[in-house]
Amino acid sequence: MPLYLEDLSPGMVFRAGPVTVSEAEIIDFARRYDPQPFHTDPEAAKAHPIFQGLAASGWHTAALTMPMVIEAMRDLAGGVVGGGGELQWPRPVRAGDSLRVEIEALEVTPSRSRPDRGSVLWRNTTLNQHGEAVQVFTVRGVVPRRPGAGQG
Amino acid sequence: MPLYLEDLSPGMVFRAGPVTVSEAEIIDFARRYDPQPFHTDPEAAKAHPIFQGLAASGWHTAALTMPMVIEAMRDLAGGVVGGGGELQWPRPVRAGDSLRVEIEALEVTPSRSRPDRGSVLWRNTTLNQHGEAVQVFTVRGVVPRRPGAGQG
Repeated sequence: MPLYLEDLSPGMVFRAGPVTVSEAEIIDFARRYDPQPFHTDPEAAKAHPIFQGLAASGWHTAALTMPMVIEAMRDLAGGVVGGGGELQWPRPVRAGDSLRVEIEALEVTPSRSRPDRGSVLWRNTTLNQHGEAVQVFTVRGVVPRRPGAGQG
Repeated sequence: MPLYLEDLSPGMVFRAGPVTVSEAEIIDFARRYDPQPFHTDPEAAKAHPIFQGLAASGWHTAALTMPMVIEAMRDLAGGVVGGGGELQWPRPVRAGDSLRVEIEALEVTPSRSRPDRGSVLWRNTTLNQHGEAVQVFTVRGVVPRRPGAGQG
């Protein structure tokens, strides 16, 4: 049963995961997309004043989170489409961390101009195995209304 | 010459790119990190009401942008480290698009509690070959102060 805008309300939570990230994956992603020593070189990373050890690129955390978001929202009509939002990385992801996602609907708003859709403000929190947030993405997504709804 | 906090001021702009993204890369990234038909299947994507054709995952746009940011900021002391910010994808990235980045320093603020560092609010705009923004990331980064500065 697909989930349409009418099926969502603030406070609903969707979950998926975990996925575990290895040192090799962290280094491999960073070599291609974020080639800086604190993401690619475990020895050099130890000396970094902020990271103090190898840390995954924030973009890697985002990329690892997205398949879990899709899994959690697999019944959502129209797929997971967002135009952007507020992205925070409060803590680094380390080799061996096991990540999961919790997605909460914060606001559900029918479109005034487009009767076939609405917007949902989601907060997607990526948590590590200690229950600590490593990423929080607060994102407004487009969700279709149930076909025939809102037509009068 | 490394760039320290003292060397930065609002309005300074740094640039890098372009990089061109292929259909194969868009599909390859999306299969791994954002497996939805509008990112992985050019035929299915044509029917999507918003994308109307194959579009890169926003996370792919972010990942492609980051090496350009590192290149543009290669002289920045301490590397490119950010704790998050406001991320927007105003337009999709299409196969064959050629992307470049423009990074503007918006605010430069010495830390009150840590004399060895400060924060810079950056706006990193990823532009396509038509000069249209495909991603805007407004991010606060940590930048070291020149060693010895602010000590007396």
